[in-house]
Amino acid sequence: MATINDIAKKTGLSKSTISRYLNQGSVSKASRKKIKQAIEELGYIPNSYARNLKISKTNTIGVIIPNFIGYTKNTSLNAINIYLKDTDYSMLISCSNDDMRQEVRIIDEMVRLNVDGIILFASNISQKHIKTLNNLDIPVVIFGQNLDKFISITADDYTAGRLMASYIKELNHKEITYFDVGDYDIAVGNRYKGLLSILKDTDIKINHHHADFTKQTAYERAKEVIDKENSTIYLGATDNIAFGIIEALREKNIKIPDEISVTGFGDYEISPLINPPLTTVAFSYEKLGKLAIESLIDAIEGNKSIKAKQVEPKLIVRSSCK
Amino acid sequence: MATINDIAKKTGLSKSTISRYLNQGSVSKASRKKIKQAIEELGYIPNSYARNLKISKTNTIGVIIPNFIGYTKNTSLNAINIYLKDTDYSMLISCSNDDMRQEVRIIDEMVRLNVDGIILFASNISQKHIKTLNNLDIPVVIFGQNLDKFISITADDYTAGRLMASYIKELNHKEITYFDVGDYDIAVGNRYKGLLSILKDTDIKINHHHADFTKQTAYERAKEVIDKENSTIYLGATDNIAFGIIEALREKNIKIPDEISVTGFGDYEISPLINPPLTTVAFSYEKLGKLAIESLIDAIEGNKSIKAKQVEPKLIVRSSCK
Repeated sequence: MATINDIAKKTGLSKSTISRYLNQGSVSKASRKKIKQAIEELGYIPNSYARNLKISKTNTIGVIIPNFIGYTKNTSLNAINIYLKDTDYSMLISCSNDDMRQEVRIIDEMVRLNVDGIILFASNISQKHIKTLNNLDIPVVIFGQNLDKFISITADDYTAGRLMASYIKELNHKEITYFDVGDYDIAVGNRYKGLLSILKDTDIKINHHHADFTKQTAYERAKEVIDKENSTIYLGATDNIAFGIIEALREKNIKIPDEISVTGFGDYEISPLINPPLTTVAFSYEKLGKLAIESLIDAIEGNKSIKAKQVEPKLIVRSSCK
Repeated sequence: MATINDIAKKTGLSKSTISRYLNQGSVSKASRKKIKQAIEELGYIPNSYARNLKISKTNTIGVIIPNFIGYTKNTSLNAINIYLKDTDYSMLISCSNDDMRQEVRIIDEMVRLNVDGIILFASNISQKHIKTLNNLDIPVVIFGQNLDKFISITADDYTAGRLMASYIKELNHKEITYFDVGDYDIAVGNRYKGLLSILKDTDIKINHHHADFTKQTAYERAKEVIDKENSTIYLGATDNIAFGIIEALREKNIKIPDEISVTGFGDYEISPLINPPLTTVAFSYEKLGKLAIESLIDAIEGNKSIKAKQVEPKLIVRSSCK
């Protein structure tokens, strides 16, 4: 396929002039004519991406994150960063503030910045995302979600939920309270689906509440429901939520785990040091981060196969449950 | 489609005047009227994206961070992000992997990306940094370091060290072990200087060791020295270091604080939930982040005064010391 280089060679004009032409910038009439003719003769297809900007490889990876809250993204980002140390690539990060429309705009902006590939830390993928992503000519890794036709790196959240539910069943709890992050995060939602797949055939009562990714909101929501419900175990959809629950229970002088048990999902670095050490499900965020960047660079460098890669969870029993 | 050039031609005004108008900058009443009329007649659509491409302002802030480890940067970045929600600006983050030469290269890259201003989360400022920063035409905020001629946002680390030292003196400890992050981080180094300013005139023996920003390294170093030293209190230069120390002490079945006390610096969200709840010094990272972005946008929008702003620390006594 003809490239901008070929047009430059044929016309004797610089690549930047041709890129200006393709971007509707100012180019002299004579050059305009030459470029137009070369495009026709060479059969150059100004596909949307090339037309928009891309001239050469920048060795820059664009990373899009929803927010800065939590241990998990940081750990994955750090793993990506450590991996990049031994490569010629660097990364640029942009944050969508949990705003899905922003996210689509940022994808466009990353393209404008000429990145060679994108890692999208996905909360929820809209039709607009898919449309935008489908139009890109650069490789994209979807981190945390499974999306057909794209490289998807996920933790097996469904199995994580099942592991936790089996453990709770074993402990003979009859009423549980579950705090999650709301419906929009598909990955975290899969933990609940996994839980339900085990608990639906039991007589265990589930009180299901929405919080968000912050410890503070979980603390506030937990304080509201502690006196109203008879659960003997509180589950956070993340360890951070579990920390908020623990704070609320402590404030009410409720003994953990003697009166109420608590669990999380994530196994943060700090979770074993919490009082009491938190029972949770571990994912290897280092491994997830490494898989993401490895797959992206592989794709940038020409490997066209689309793979979905998943990291297995592991139940970590400590002393926050009875 | 009409462009800024067309409006310039029609009004006889410069492109920069029109760009100022579109960005709500200062433009005379007469020019304002002319531009408004031209926009209407030409049917110019000032969509912000197209507008940004045409003129030099991109409404993008470049943020340079050394690594992804730790609660503090995340909290400040989150505060910056929340602040940006109510503005027309977005941010791009790049990470230097704690490599100071990389950092200088990234500053150049940010300029190439046309950012309107830079926030540099600084560990250590070299002569090369200063030379590069001096050559920039865009405002720069130095976060965490004081640098002449630049907007500097810092926590008062020296006073933080003094607060902690006074508390230790009060508790009558005679030998202390201090773990810091190495010499290269000036801000953290100031905590030690503050400590020394109080302890140098006492008979308290100080064992000073280097670790880094990770909990893991602090855990390993602490394990090495616990049997060799007779300190009754272990100080981490950050809460994360204190968490590593606590992990090492627990592994050796040493009771905190009955046998050995532990303190940190930073007061992370999680520090009250640790076993035992950690005595530490608090800085408001939300406030630091907000000051940084507020000052930068203020400078981008024309305020030329260079200010140094500092956030005061506060000793938080919990139950990890005796």
